[in-house]
Amino acid sequence: MAGETVITVIGNLVDDPELRYTPSGAAVAKFRIASTPRTFDRESNQWKDGEALFLTCSVWRQYAENVAESLSRGTRVIVQGRLKQRSYETREGEKRTVYELDVEEVGPALRFSTAKLNRSGASGGGGGGRSFGGGAGSGGGSAPDDPWASAAPAGGGAAASGGFDEDPPF
Amino acid sequence: MAGETVITVIGNLVDDPELRYTPSGAAVAKFRIASTPRTFDRESNQWKDGEALFLTCSVWRQYAENVAESLSRGTRVIVQGRLKQRSYETREGEKRTVYELDVEEVGPALRFSTAKLNRSGASGGGGGGRSFGGGAGSGGGSAPDDPWASAAPAGGGAAASGGFDEDPPF
Amino acid sequence: MAGETVITVIGNLVDDPELRYTPSGAAVAKFRIASTPRTFDRESNQWKDGEALFLTCSVWRQYAENVAESLSRGTRVIVQGRLKQRSYETREGEKRTVYELDVEEVGPALRFSTAKLNRSGASGGGGGGRSFGGGAGSGGGSAPDDPWASAAPAGGGAAASGGFDEDPPF
Amino acid sequence: MAGETVITVIGNLVDDPELRYTPSGAAVAKFRIASTPRTFDRESNQWKDGEALFLTCSVWRQYAENVAESLSRGTRVIVQGRLKQRSYETREGEKRTVYELDVEEVGPALRFSTAKLNRSGASGGGGGGRSFGGGAGSGGGSAPDDPWASAAPAGGGAAASGGFDEDPPF
Repeated sequence: MAGETVITVIGNLVDDPELRYTPSGAAVAKFRIASTPRTFDRESNQWKDGEALFLTCSVWRQYAENVAESLSRGTRVIVQGRLKQRSYETREGEKRTVYELDVEEVGPALRFSTAKLNRSGASGGGGGGRSFGGGAGSGGGSAPDDPWASAAPAGGGAAASGGFDEDPPF
Repeated sequence: MAGETVITVIGNLVDDPELRYTPSGAAVAKFRIASTPRTFDRESNQWKDGEALFLTCSVWRQYAENVAESLSRGTRVIVQGRLKQRSYETREGEKRTVYELDVEEVGPALRFSTAKLNRSGASGGGGGGRSFGGGAGSGGGSAPDDPWASAAPAGGGAAASGGFDEDPPF
Repeated sequence: MAGETVITVIGNLVDDPELRYTPSGAAVAKFRIASTPRTFDRESNQWKDGEALFLTCSVWRQYAENVAESLSRGTRVIVQGRLKQRSYETREGEKRTVYELDVEEVGPALRFSTAKLNRSGASGGGGGGRSFGGGAGSGGGSAPDDPWASAAPAGGGAAASGGFDEDPPF
Repeated sequence: MAGETVITVIGNLVDDPELRYTPSGAAVAKFRIASTPRTFDRESNQWKDGEALFLTCSVWRQYAENVAESLSRGTRVIVQGRLKQRSYETREGEKRTVYELDVEEVGPALRFSTAKLNRSGASGGGGGGRSFGGGAGSGGGSAPDDPWASAAPAGGGAAASGGFDEDPPF
């Protein structure tokens, strides 16, 4: 894949992540984040909130299960993903467009909290304790191009937004 | 601050973070990450590791303590920060340059692990459970421009790479 | 300003930029870009286009005039800006949300073309030929925090999306 | 390629770009940029320059020729590329590391100047006037994964930092 718009967003979860499974058994989690900029007001000498940016994020397979288990409403997160646009028609025949983030990497920001990490089951060979030479990377969502594909759970290998032959269960 | 080069890096900690305190009592943590790209080799039909990118990262105050408590050698992390260059002279009088990352936000990537979060002490009012409207943001390291400055521990208010009047303890 | 979601997008202009002036005389240009990712199809051994991401971008003052004079439909550009969300109600009372990019920096990508540069009038002191020490930076759209504010044309000093006391002319 | 550290830098060229050719005839241009952050000093009520970040950038083939023809010392540019680290030994046997940027996209920032664009010769089918649907993208430097590879000049098809079998001419 080339030419994708990869962005990083810092925000807080608006709700708990929602975890679902495709008919073939692939997990997918959706969560919505709000990113609120702050402006320094020189008159009051205080920071005040600007208008929040809301984005819906989706993440697949083992990563989805890890997200659903770890994050909840209010958690401050760092998300890196591909900004995508999706168009659809309402029942009234109106065309609408939504922007979404296909998550490559996500995790809790440690600004206000500590984290106790545990390797997740299905990809236990990797995880928190893996050696640093073991290959960092991004772009994990796309099965055909996925360098972590071998770590995917059985039945989830085809799960990706790109070459995915089932509609997301949302 | 304007015109800074803010980047996001996904990598794995090469060693445990190192936590120190300035004479005035401000915490600072340093950690080194390795980010390893992967190339798909069409002949072998396999992914193979490219040359790793190593970067030293520093983070301050309560955030430093959270990092030291949560992350360890091998943890896969997402780091957003300002790319900085620092020049110095060796004892032999040679000029050297190093690149470092002033961390704005950092946390464990949940690709291979789950995380159990706890609000950190000193800034307990914020944290994992804070409402999403409570103000996301980046740029936390710079005291004079720091929207989170009021949450800083006593004695740490002046701790920032920019206007900092003590040398980092490294 | 802290905590903004700054992103970089590579795309092509869908139409010529549209240049307008606020009642107080500040220039603002809007343009729409399409960013089309490509996927490598291993069966056909060819790259094929994915679904395009469309974003509306706005840029202010002298920068707006430079954009309107330099870019046109089809130009491939690099845009760095703050991703913003704007909500409004339709005449039927429905709530809608659009995402837009407040441009910090923009210019033509030189992948398929060469560029002949000329310093722009009003900020002639800077420009193509300025010395490299003269201050790079981002965030130019926000008047109160604008390190280039002194270079702004008379009447345009207050022009910014944040503290702006006039509605954009769109 | 997955897991690369793609960053965007705004800066000014420290010198004119240097254009060379590999023995097989592939063009490569190197240029060095300085990115200078600015801090707002509340006491003097003025912006002042911070310490500059310097990065060496390299770009290949037709893109290299376009850069060499268009940019010069002092030009303000937007550069997107992969941050790479390269280690080598000095004649004295000391190990050194340099950071470089493998350019994906680069162009002049229009903050202080206007640009007159011309399609470049070898890839004339694309260029300034191409339709917006014609495929934006990044990652152009890597030949095997290069969606623009078909537009590359003869002899330059193999030119890439990754799978490149000749040393860069620097």
